[in-house]
Amino acid sequence: MAPETTETMTDRVARLAQSSAFGRFAGFTVTHAQDGKATLSMPFKAELGQYTGILHAGLIAGLLDTAAGFAGVSLDGTMVVASQMSVNFIAPAAGEQFRAEAAIIKAGRRQIFAESHLYAIKTADRRETLIATASVILLRVEGAI
Amino acid sequence: MAPETTETMTDRVARLAQSSAFGRFAGFTVTHAQDGKATLSMPFKAELGQYTGILHAGLIAGLLDTAAGFAGVSLDGTMVVASQMSVNFIAPAAGEQFRAEAAIIKAGRRQIFAESHLYAIKTADRRETLIATASVILLRVEGAI
Amino acid sequence: MAPETTETMTDRVARLAQSSAFGRFAGFTVTHAQDGKATLSMPFKAELGQYTGILHAGLIAGLLDTAAGFAGVSLDGTMVVASQMSVNFIAPAAGEQFRAEAAIIKAGRRQIFAESHLYAIKTADRRETLIATASVILLRVEGAI
Amino acid sequence: MAPETTETMTDRVARLAQSSAFGRFAGFTVTHAQDGKATLSMPFKAELGQYTGILHAGLIAGLLDTAAGFAGVSLDGTMVVASQMSVNFIAPAAGEQFRAEAAIIKAGRRQIFAESHLYAIKTADRRETLIATASVILLRVEGAI
Repeated sequence: MAPETTETMTDRVARLAQSSAFGRFAGFTVTHAQDGKATLSMPFKAELGQYTGILHAGLIAGLLDTAAGFAGVSLDGTMVVASQMSVNFIAPAAGEQFRAEAAIIKAGRRQIFAESHLYAIKTADRRETLIATASVILLRVEGAI
Repeated sequence: MAPETTETMTDRVARLAQSSAFGRFAGFTVTHAQDGKATLSMPFKAELGQYTGILHAGLIAGLLDTAAGFAGVSLDGTMVVASQMSVNFIAPAAGEQFRAEAAIIKAGRRQIFAESHLYAIKTADRRETLIATASVILLRVEGAI
Repeated sequence: MAPETTETMTDRVARLAQSSAFGRFAGFTVTHAQDGKATLSMPFKAELGQYTGILHAGLIAGLLDTAAGFAGVSLDGTMVVASQMSVNFIAPAAGEQFRAEAAIIKAGRRQIFAESHLYAIKTADRRETLIATASVILLRVEGAI
Repeated sequence: MAPETTETMTDRVARLAQSSAFGRFAGFTVTHAQDGKATLSMPFKAELGQYTGILHAGLIAGLLDTAAGFAGVSLDGTMVVASQMSVNFIAPAAGEQFRAEAAIIKAGRRQIFAESHLYAIKTADRRETLIATASVILLRVEGAI
């Protein structure tokens, strides 16, 4: 038996995540990816801040988009790209840790619809705050993990 | 006369841009910001790439959002935050240089509506491709530049 | 005791719904509106169809927006208007009955964020299909119900 | 010569518009549709109003979506459906006449990206106000006009 048969979908998506230079810089870590659901974690660091020091909108959008994409890939390993993303910034992005959760709500023949939620976590009291949500439309592309 | 009276709005917004750690890492440069219009440039580098090597969606969204925000700030120097952003990813984000252009289409009492366009530039032939567009809603916040 | 003290929030929102001429034409009926959640029903009729005979996108958006607005009003009776709506059309809008469900996910000082889901119901087998989703940003305005 | 050879794309799209029962009720009139651009007019009438008497959000969205769809159809006559629409409501929808203008900004292999603008017109002084904008993603479907 080849060793890769024991690799889970989460393992495969985590490996995909490692192939993104920006994902490595930012510190995106896949903690779950299976059956159309994915969870991504990222610790805060100063280089990710905007002018007031909290998380930059590019990272907020990047986490929401990436989690949605990984949820899409986790359906059957086929690669996807985002074609549309609508983001609501609902609370200040202040925290020491961030967690993005995405779920596929409809995988159609031509488009995959995903929803993502981003939480900021204060490590002192483990309090979590929903700071942004997104709807994402994904398209399947060539390639598979 | 105080020296700052000779500082243009573009200078003031460029200084604001330099106060963002993520903006410095990514290499956002403000080339114009005045009267509700702003232009932002960024050279590509490997650390900004996703798994296939082209620009990561977080940078696409970050450039569109930041250009919109700077267009909003350029109205009168009052700080703003984004509350909603709808992004269309219309072509692959491949290029050696990126330019985001934003314009305020309505500055209301409570909300400011902006539109941003992102272009990828191939340095070989200076060909520009529109790769993404966004509508952004901005809210005024405490502080001014 | 004044008779209106026995009126529920659902009653008050249903009365508001009746004050909309387009809502009466389309047949919007409020079946629930309380504590930031609202449900709206509408039977299909031929006048609401687009060129292939299924529900027109204007009604899809109208139901999603109106349900979100009623969820917002149900918080404390203060009137609201939508400032942004992002709609995903995820399945054909074919059915004899439609039901929109909305919930407030964050009621901030300046903005209220809502999410709406629209279901089509085939009366033959009572099968329900999620046909569209929306994120809606609401602003409080003068007046109350 | 067959008489239909003299029919313009605007004529063909106007005929399509007449096949929509809701479009006829609302009074949508196609005034231009060619090469990826379309214009739609609609006079106000009381049945189209929301609770304060101005145009209902369902009609705002319906006009923006329909204009975008007609712009898409006008490319080569192939039918389209909307899969996503992001609407910004930027000013009160008060007027005696409404005009929606849409343009295709990118017709890709799988998706067509459109932008729509909606203007309210006060007949007394012919003053026009931009009241809403939308980005719309269209998909090609079976059929042609």
